[in-house]
Amino acid sequence: MNARAMVRTSVEMFQESLITKERALLRFEPLILEQLLVPQLSPDFRGKPLAQGLPASPGAASGKIVFDADTAEARGRLGEKIILVREETKPEDIHGFFQAQGILTSRGGKTSHAAVVARGMGKPCVSGCEQIVINDVTRSAIIGDTTLHEGDVITINGSTGHVYVGEVPTVEAEFSGEMATLLAWADEVARLKVLANADTPEAAAKARGFGAMGIGLCRTERMFNGTDRLPIVQEMILAETPEQRQAALDRLLPIQRSDFKGIFKAMRGLPVTVRLLDPPMHEFLPTAAQLELEIAHLHQLRDTIKGLEELPDTLKLLNPKLYQQYSDGLLKLMGGLHTFKESHLEEDVISKKETILKKVRALAEVNPMLGHRGVRLGITYPEIYTMQIQAILEAAALCAKEGVEIYPEIMVPQVATVEELKRIHSYVQRIHKVVELTHGINVKFKFGSMLEVVRACVRAGRMAETAEFFSFGTNDLTQAVFSFSREDAENKFLPAYNETGILQDNPFEVLDIKGVGQLMKMGVERGRQTNPDLKVGICGEHGGHPGSIHFCHHIGLSYVSCSGPRVPIARLAAAQAKLLEGEYQDPS
Amino acid sequence: MNARAMVRTSVEMFQESLITKERALLRFEPLILEQLLVPQLSPDFRGKPLAQGLPASPGAASGKIVFDADTAEARGRLGEKIILVREETKPEDIHGFFQAQGILTSRGGKTSHAAVVARGMGKPCVSGCEQIVINDVTRSAIIGDTTLHEGDVITINGSTGHVYVGEVPTVEAEFSGEMATLLAWADEVARLKVLANADTPEAAAKARGFGAMGIGLCRTERMFNGTDRLPIVQEMILAETPEQRQAALDRLLPIQRSDFKGIFKAMRGLPVTVRLLDPPMHEFLPTAAQLELEIAHLHQLRDTIKGLEELPDTLKLLNPKLYQQYSDGLLKLMGGLHTFKESHLEEDVISKKETILKKVRALAEVNPMLGHRGVRLGITYPEIYTMQIQAILEAAALCAKEGVEIYPEIMVPQVATVEELKRIHSYVQRIHKVVELTHGINVKFKFGSMLEVVRACVRAGRMAETAEFFSFGTNDLTQAVFSFSREDAENKFLPAYNETGILQDNPFEVLDIKGVGQLMKMGVERGRQTNPDLKVGICGEHGGHPGSIHFCHHIGLSYVSCSGPRVPIARLAAAQAKLLEGEYQDPS
Repeated sequence: MNARAMVRTSVEMFQESLITKERALLRFEPLILEQLLVPQLSPDFRGKPLAQGLPASPGAASGKIVFDADTAEARGRLGEKIILVREETKPEDIHGFFQAQGILTSRGGKTSHAAVVARGMGKPCVSGCEQIVINDVTRSAIIGDTTLHEGDVITINGSTGHVYVGEVPTVEAEFSGEMATLLAWADEVARLKVLANADTPEAAAKARGFGAMGIGLCRTERMFNGTDRLPIVQEMILAETPEQRQAALDRLLPIQRSDFKGIFKAMRGLPVTVRLLDPPMHEFLPTAAQLELEIAHLHQLRDTIKGLEELPDTLKLLNPKLYQQYSDGLLKLMGGLHTFKESHLEEDVISKKETILKKVRALAEVNPMLGHRGVRLGITYPEIYTMQIQAILEAAALCAKEGVEIYPEIMVPQVATVEELKRIHSYVQRIHKVVELTHGINVKFKFGSMLEVVRACVRAGRMAETAEFFSFGTNDLTQAVFSFSREDAENKFLPAYNETGILQDNPFEVLDIKGVGQLMKMGVERGRQTNPDLKVGICGEHGGHPGSIHFCHHIGLSYVSCSGPRVPIARLAAAQAKLLEGEYQDPS
Repeated sequence: MNARAMVRTSVEMFQESLITKERALLRFEPLILEQLLVPQLSPDFRGKPLAQGLPASPGAASGKIVFDADTAEARGRLGEKIILVREETKPEDIHGFFQAQGILTSRGGKTSHAAVVARGMGKPCVSGCEQIVINDVTRSAIIGDTTLHEGDVITINGSTGHVYVGEVPTVEAEFSGEMATLLAWADEVARLKVLANADTPEAAAKARGFGAMGIGLCRTERMFNGTDRLPIVQEMILAETPEQRQAALDRLLPIQRSDFKGIFKAMRGLPVTVRLLDPPMHEFLPTAAQLELEIAHLHQLRDTIKGLEELPDTLKLLNPKLYQQYSDGLLKLMGGLHTFKESHLEEDVISKKETILKKVRALAEVNPMLGHRGVRLGITYPEIYTMQIQAILEAAALCAKEGVEIYPEIMVPQVATVEELKRIHSYVQRIHKVVELTHGINVKFKFGSMLEVVRACVRAGRMAETAEFFSFGTNDLTQAVFSFSREDAENKFLPAYNETGILQDNPFEVLDIKGVGQLMKMGVERGRQTNPDLKVGICGEHGGHPGSIHFCHHIGLSYVSCSGPRVPIARLAAAQAKLLEGEYQDPS
């Protein structure tokens, strides 16, 4: 029975008094709802699949066949929709994944490289489709009597493993009335609240549509990356004096304030947790390689133009008659060149890029994931966090004035020591006083800490003296507990670890209860020893995984926060966790 | 009173029955012995210092003044001895540190960037020497009436903060009779054993001279880096088939075996813990940037030669008479070019480099410290660890046959899961059987795990079912617990953290008892719950720091292992830890 039918019959069986609400909530695995929450083949479609592989990453996608990652990257960049088709994928194919709509492999299981990486990226994947014989030389694939060439369009359905010739119409996720009914029952039962991760008013509104009870993680760096903001952010980073930096921040402040106002309004009546800037500064600048290339091209262009500029004099010397004949045209050409040079090749265009390159090199890090980021930026550049805190509290004040009911929360990322949290708290208290005075209104907010650094879990007892809430960042915490960099691990050795049985699951998808879970437990226990009412949640990707949600319920978390489309799954899982709590066995 | 006098009077006061041995051992801070264990100014030297700064990193060094990091790097690479002199240093100066003998700054304290980085590198540093006025434009420094120019030689004494004009003779560390006596008393008292980190028979012998009771960490990657081995290691990495890889490993095997034999013999009667390969593969290959440069140069050279080769024909055409006159010389020149091209510019020289470049790019990682390294290599390339284990056990068998008393130990790095350890243990058991059969002799050894990944500390109870010993790698563990990359942290924000009081110490120098220490405690307790006799040590740099040694004693470690010259400090600290154990207060 498919997910849609499951949901419908569950609701109907209760309405016909055949089962209780509790039974209705326990009839199926929450994960099967995923089918209803990713793009699907159009239900009217009656075509026959050409081949059947393994459903390795859900969702449907169409695109032109491409047989290698380089071509996928090149054509994808041109805006073409691409399905990467390979015997199996390897770490060196990763750039092809980024540009592909979906991935199809003829070999490998649900833990193959292709499957793991596609799931990580949220892209559809059919793996181990063994009927397909790929010929890299003729750039074609044979399936039974059919031969497909590079550029032919196919459609894959990662939820079923089916492969179709041609483009099959797809439909976006849908949210039926029965689903709404069932999930409303789930919310009555569950003890865990389900919040969403969202960074824009639109995403927040969408998440609210999925039943999110607030925003558990609003990442401010997404706002920094907007095309209208990035130049100002870069100005701030490249500033040579505190005054220059402040000038850039002064321009960012109203933008951030209006971002926050939009999100607070979209979530009126519900909490919104804003995380202060997390990624390292160099993420907002182009890479050194890109800048080097651009600078080399500019130099080359300048040399070429210099050569062209000598053309009239040379011609005059060699053939005065010819020169006379074309002198008008030549002068115009020279004028054009001059204008071009003026506007595009000014000395300072190159030297500006050279300045950025120098800064990029100075900011370069060996292990950026463990580098100068999160609260470490907040301590070394107080003016950045100060601006963000001011934007949040001013947005809150403005909403309050307009009578919008708001519950803003300020969250500090990458905290490792009690002193870091206290330092940022002191900024917040100072700014809060100023904002209340300036706006003449009470502004309520909560102040809390991410628990994503191992040391923060160990020191949670002391952290809870300053933090009013904790939120586990289980992606970073998993990286720190395993000493695995997610990107490197999924690309280099996790598939082999899964295939040879070293690990049963990918710990970045399924929470590692025996390791990471123990630190979470420690964080909750120590935090609540200091403050029994401490709100504790999780905002890593695991917050949307049913098995992890059972564990979160078990250790007494207050909420889980996950991506918008995962909210329905999490709501059902939260209800099941409550209903089955008596049977829960801690695997550790 | 200086260190030498302290040691002497302590011994004499006991000999004159003025104090007990215990009192003699408690008379001074072990760290003051450091003065006697780094290069010193010659005791005959009577010169007057030119200036006085802060003793920021101990030891004496002479070299030519250089005022910026780029020049320091350029001249240092040419083999010149350099002292980097700057107002203050910044992260972008780091390449200058590598090439300098020592660092002198006119500003900044003992926690300034210069001080922290120099101590981390074990290089002498005088900081905050405010009498020096540096003029970057004239490339000179003025101290009172003296003007020093770039290239002038100075000597700095990082133990006292003194700066001298010219080269002052220095003496290597010395180990007096009184010191030997005092440390022998220390060994009688201490419960902790003190071992050394050493990678060669020479370093092992030297450490034994400092009183090391074994080798706690022998890093096999140092052996891979030797100039005679590196080409074979690169062959192994670049191998395209398992057979090619095995062929390279077969050549490495006898080399590693003889390395281990040398170390076992140097340490006869004492344990030697060999750590299997730890760093990621790309560390054994040139960087992508270097290869790109080399390839570009080779192409350029080939084009130039191509141009030269056309010279005779062009000359023949333009001026046959001149050509006739010089044809002999020209022919010889062309012959020379041809030979040069044959030997240096064959198509495959460039294409070989291009192959390496491709591999380097495939192996590139975002966060190499958390990437494909340690036991993860051992799982994905079993043949590498297999070769190393075979080399260790065969070396042990050969020593045993020769009647050399040996205690070899095999240690696995970067372990995060019980399954990883079991997998490597299965390799060891299989190879052990074969070696015993082949050599017809019993080979005793111990098998153990590094505890440097957070998860390994959490899972220590299960780890101890397979491991006969644990060794804390507190450098990596500190990185994981704080989510700090050491290099990035010390370069970017740790100095600011120290200066603004977020952290009292650099956690890479002084063990963070409140965070890292809690995980160590957990590791010891859980491990000993499974096996009360479990041997547990520490082989990170902290093993040589007195404060950390007190904590190691307190949590019941069996040994500390540190760099050779730190062994005397650790021996005294271990005795003091025992004598003062009643007064120990856990800061956590």
